[in-house]
Amino acid sequence: MSEQALTVDLGNRSYPIVIGRGLFRNRFDLETFLPSDKCLVVTNETVGSLYLESLRECLPSSKVRSITLPDGEKYKTLSTARSVIDELVEAKADRKTSVIALGGGVIGDIAGFAAACYMRGVPFVQIPTTLLAQVDSSVGGKTGVNHPAGKNLIGAFHQPRIVLIETETLCTLPDREFRAGLAEVIKYGAIVDIEFFVWLEEHIETLLERDPEALTYAIRRSCEIKAGVVAQDECEAGKRALLNFGHTFGHAIEKSAGYGEWLHGEAVAVGMMMAASMSEISDDELDRLSALICAAGLPVIPPCVGADKLKAAMRTDKKIQSNKLRLVLLRALGSAFVTSEYSQDRLLEVVSRADG
Amino acid sequence: MSEQALTVDLGNRSYPIVIGRGLFRNRFDLETFLPSDKCLVVTNETVGSLYLESLRECLPSSKVRSITLPDGEKYKTLSTARSVIDELVEAKADRKTSVIALGGGVIGDIAGFAAACYMRGVPFVQIPTTLLAQVDSSVGGKTGVNHPAGKNLIGAFHQPRIVLIETETLCTLPDREFRAGLAEVIKYGAIVDIEFFVWLEEHIETLLERDPEALTYAIRRSCEIKAGVVAQDECEAGKRALLNFGHTFGHAIEKSAGYGEWLHGEAVAVGMMMAASMSEISDDELDRLSALICAAGLPVIPPCVGADKLKAAMRTDKKIQSNKLRLVLLRALGSAFVTSEYSQDRLLEVVSRADG
Repeated sequence: MSEQALTVDLGNRSYPIVIGRGLFRNRFDLETFLPSDKCLVVTNETVGSLYLESLRECLPSSKVRSITLPDGEKYKTLSTARSVIDELVEAKADRKTSVIALGGGVIGDIAGFAAACYMRGVPFVQIPTTLLAQVDSSVGGKTGVNHPAGKNLIGAFHQPRIVLIETETLCTLPDREFRAGLAEVIKYGAIVDIEFFVWLEEHIETLLERDPEALTYAIRRSCEIKAGVVAQDECEAGKRALLNFGHTFGHAIEKSAGYGEWLHGEAVAVGMMMAASMSEISDDELDRLSALICAAGLPVIPPCVGADKLKAAMRTDKKIQSNKLRLVLLRALGSAFVTSEYSQDRLLEVVSRADG
Repeated sequence: MSEQALTVDLGNRSYPIVIGRGLFRNRFDLETFLPSDKCLVVTNETVGSLYLESLRECLPSSKVRSITLPDGEKYKTLSTARSVIDELVEAKADRKTSVIALGGGVIGDIAGFAAACYMRGVPFVQIPTTLLAQVDSSVGGKTGVNHPAGKNLIGAFHQPRIVLIETETLCTLPDREFRAGLAEVIKYGAIVDIEFFVWLEEHIETLLERDPEALTYAIRRSCEIKAGVVAQDECEAGKRALLNFGHTFGHAIEKSAGYGEWLHGEAVAVGMMMAASMSEISDDELDRLSALICAAGLPVIPPCVGADKLKAAMRTDKKIQSNKLRLVLLRALGSAFVTSEYSQDRLLEVVSRADG
């Protein structure tokens, strides 16, 4: 087992990200990170049947209760979060009872939001089992559920005590979901790290073969970049917004295609291409981004939902401030910035790609 | 108009508490504290019909939307909070849209929780219109809603931008609610300030006559004490727990009597007597506390709900940690402390007062 640890530096709320192969098999001592012997594991049908028993072996002296949620983004609702809270009440959970998310981004977001709200916040642990959750949603403390009007409109910032990344869980991840996770990995290179971008261009095939070493490196570097950004700007006042590269378009695509039709990563892949097309970068750079996204087996063209529908969906974006939609654009590959100064015509043109 | 201002010192989230008579009449410039011209006022039928128009005059250049919630603790639910969030969505509220609570503690708690969750937190303003909310719930950032299993089980810490206390709103406050608010005022004296306690003993009649000067002093001193405690311990890791004097018993009384039957302050008044009875204080001090509570027209004996029901209600208290119920007891009048070391027999004896 090669175990690596990073720290998300947030003062007295700092926490480690532990990345390793065989963490479950080797009975990682998770109990050190929990303030009491009571915990509630939140998982879904798929992941629970595969890994819940392995996780229990990392908690030999704890009273482990679990709740299994239905699988899928469409269940990421306030009422599902409420069912987790009801389970905590049922378990007579107190302020030291930990909520442990075992699953992908949906599970992490719902469980984290329930942990944030129950008694105004109880300890929380992230054990992400999809590539997307490992490189993105499990790090940084964003939690939340969807509202019919938009993704993650209801949520909280609630940092975990630890993020535990068992890379072996990726062995059972369906191919489509694996590729969707690569979209966020590519994003990190595109926004702040040209060297990592080049490494990805060189190793995309190896990654698709799920080579353990390449995977661990890509996950570690992604987490490092995200942890660095989050440490500088926990609540998205400034720099953290860069992480939304491709997401304004991406969220609009997810919403107008109907949640669950497109995977988040797929929508972000297209969103990155749309944002890059609005940026003042060279054709060569645009081609490289497009080539890497394609090589990862991800889409670069939006679905034919119609430009009007896409525009309407963008209007409820959380990043709108005082009616002005801010976008993350590229100065160059590896260098992103936030702006509300861009050509409206260019925006309309890019959005019109959804007219098919 | 005599306007007084305090500061709740929380670093870059510090905010003022402005206390004054005629703040509405004199068109207090609230807009200085709002980051944009969009806001949603959350109020109830009673308070809205009395003060919403006056408040609008403090927001002459803003787009003011309002939502009127049904009046009463029984509506302090997740589903009411959701209706506020739905209104924000409907209004296309963005991250700079402010939520303004105009009402008592119930309104402040619901509106604050909705503001905390919508887009993971939008600006929030407290305009408390009951004595209880002015001296207690509007200060300190605690927000939340009730769960059938217990009060405030679902919530968040979300600090307001400003707390605006228009003391004239107390003129329309029903007598029973006014007296209930005095319970929290007495609490501040009992837990940390014997001088204030003595002042209250001397001025309780004047306060009951709602003398403006006495009221302003009592509100200011209460807010000062609470602001000081909150600044030292925002998230209730330590000292803030002192503010719960009388509340463990009080919450249990509210719950077992049925929410809404007893006002929060009434239950806290009895709770303080129960906690004081468990404390190692002199009979003379116990008599003084009892006399002051009685003079304020508040109860000192629990309702006949039965000791078993009361004990069961105490078991879901948020302050239980690892099965151990911590209580706030008095060393002396003006000096409280938190402990889980107390005689179980004494606890049973005190709780058995609910057997009638």
